[in-house]
Amino acid sequence: MPSLSPAIAEIRLAVRTALADLPEGSTVVVALSGGADSLALAAATAFEAPKRGIRVGTLTVDHGLQDGSDEVASRATQTATALGLGALIVRVDVGGEGGPEAAAREARYGVLADAAADVKASAVLLGHTLDDQAETVLLGLARGSGAASLQGMAATRTDDDGLRWVRPLLGVRRATTRAFCAASGIEVWDDPHNTDDRFARVRVRERVLPVLESELGPGIAEALVRTAEQLREDAEAFDEMIHETIEDIVEHAEAGISVSVAALAANPAALRNRIIRLVVDSEFGVSLTRLQTLEVARLVTDWSGQGPIDLPGCSAARAGGRIVFTAR
Amino acid sequence: MPSLSPAIAEIRLAVRTALADLPEGSTVVVALSGGADSLALAAATAFEAPKRGIRVGTLTVDHGLQDGSDEVASRATQTATALGLGALIVRVDVGGEGGPEAAAREARYGVLADAAADVKASAVLLGHTLDDQAETVLLGLARGSGAASLQGMAATRTDDDGLRWVRPLLGVRRATTRAFCAASGIEVWDDPHNTDDRFARVRVRERVLPVLESELGPGIAEALVRTAEQLREDAEAFDEMIHETIEDIVEHAEAGISVSVAALAANPAALRNRIIRLVVDSEFGVSLTRLQTLEVARLVTDWSGQGPIDLPGCSAARAGGRIVFTAR
Repeated sequence: MPSLSPAIAEIRLAVRTALADLPEGSTVVVALSGGADSLALAAATAFEAPKRGIRVGTLTVDHGLQDGSDEVASRATQTATALGLGALIVRVDVGGEGGPEAAAREARYGVLADAAADVKASAVLLGHTLDDQAETVLLGLARGSGAASLQGMAATRTDDDGLRWVRPLLGVRRATTRAFCAASGIEVWDDPHNTDDRFARVRVRERVLPVLESELGPGIAEALVRTAEQLREDAEAFDEMIHETIEDIVEHAEAGISVSVAALAANPAALRNRIIRLVVDSEFGVSLTRLQTLEVARLVTDWSGQGPIDLPGCSAARAGGRIVFTAR
Repeated sequence: MPSLSPAIAEIRLAVRTALADLPEGSTVVVALSGGADSLALAAATAFEAPKRGIRVGTLTVDHGLQDGSDEVASRATQTATALGLGALIVRVDVGGEGGPEAAAREARYGVLADAAADVKASAVLLGHTLDDQAETVLLGLARGSGAASLQGMAATRTDDDGLRWVRPLLGVRRATTRAFCAASGIEVWDDPHNTDDRFARVRVRERVLPVLESELGPGIAEALVRTAEQLREDAEAFDEMIHETIEDIVEHAEAGISVSVAALAANPAALRNRIIRLVVDSEFGVSLTRLQTLEVARLVTDWSGQGPIDLPGCSAARAGGRIVFTAR
């Protein structure tokens, strides 16, 4: 008997570990693009899920953004069917703001959520790999908005409808998914968008990460992922602390919201600045830059009568022991 | 009257802002290498310090690692003297572990601390720029030990002897320090180590940062620095929280130390993992990797009778409601 390919063993283990957290006998939807990542995920899930009585379907979203996208989708579903999985194609028209990448992603997640609801799925499985995660961290680093932009994608997240979004391959290199497909005789599709260097993500993949690896050592992608993991923990801890106190320190008024100066002063800068950003974001839908946040914080820590401070959508002033944010 | 060069104005403002936090009439020591950064720092300090009655001396450390290092040192001190500053050269022999870079740095900081103590200085001023900070963050990223390795250098830090280590130029681009020197007619020395690509820092400067800037946009160095600033705040907040609780939850024993399982379980992962690392580091002088830390954490969060866990220098086991670390 030939021994199992290491790539197949590694990916099956990753999928088995992820499935262990899902209810026995439930249904999962695998997001299937036709690339090596999602094909490997679908094939490994087809192998592992029956052991826990989990039913598996795949969903392929055809964005219609490229010529022949219908053929790509149909080939992906043929592979899924050959693996014994139920397979569905949904054609979506992409509109929306934020460029084609963002619009396509949003449309895709919407369709996946709908399909998961239709079959009462416990989870959607996504094929993002360690390489995707490292790229996400580098893109976040370029934005420079601190821990929030560096924490990458969650390995598992439960949305407001109780649906889990799970990324079993977040610890697996992209090359391993290709090796999986090669060893399994699965034909993969290479998305031409993946080499289109108008996308920042493609430039990170093709030019930034390789330079980092050659100049700083081959472990850089893993190092980025470890960093993201730890920063995600940090962000979760701060979120928890803030949500424990926020209702006690804010007051809603007719034209805005206010926060106690004493409470802001008693918190370390990390929490103070996050509270300021959260209050402005939740009340006015505005994401403050670090410089704007620090200017508001100085109303607390370095008060000499300054203000009000003009911010996007609102202004901030200190009055009567409170920082008052007022709509403009 | 010719208008002031923007580079000179920017650097003088940065130095003025830093000096405003120091006691009037005190003495500061500027670490002077002879490169553009520290020469610009010394010159701007010479201009700004008298306004606050602050006395300034420079200290140049000659590591003797390169031919002609004595000449470089002597030229730097001539410039300092021409600026009206007291200038001192200290020759050190570099031994020690961790490669010549680390050994030289350690020797330099030791000499600076001694000199500062001799003249009862309130602060040592260091010439690190925004570029140095961005490089430090990227080097930390390559290590992948999370927020701790990404927080870069502190703009100001007070050591155990009450001496402040201040970096006034941490928000100033390196190119601005060169422009300052050019506009001031100050001759600068280019350290050949700064282009020696055996040093990871040099590779980051010469090859990694330029690629990041060209692929992701010119604001990347500033983005890295903003990230470092925020992560430093985060780390300080966690440190504060841990130091408020650590003494209540650890117990010292003859061959080791133990921590309450209940207390570890009650904390979010970000704090739990930091407490584990801190306890092992302070007791056994060992810095756990993330994987090792998570394995210990599972004794708390995912306990099924496993352990003891072998760690460098100690082992960890769960016993009687405590995680017990024992020397090996």
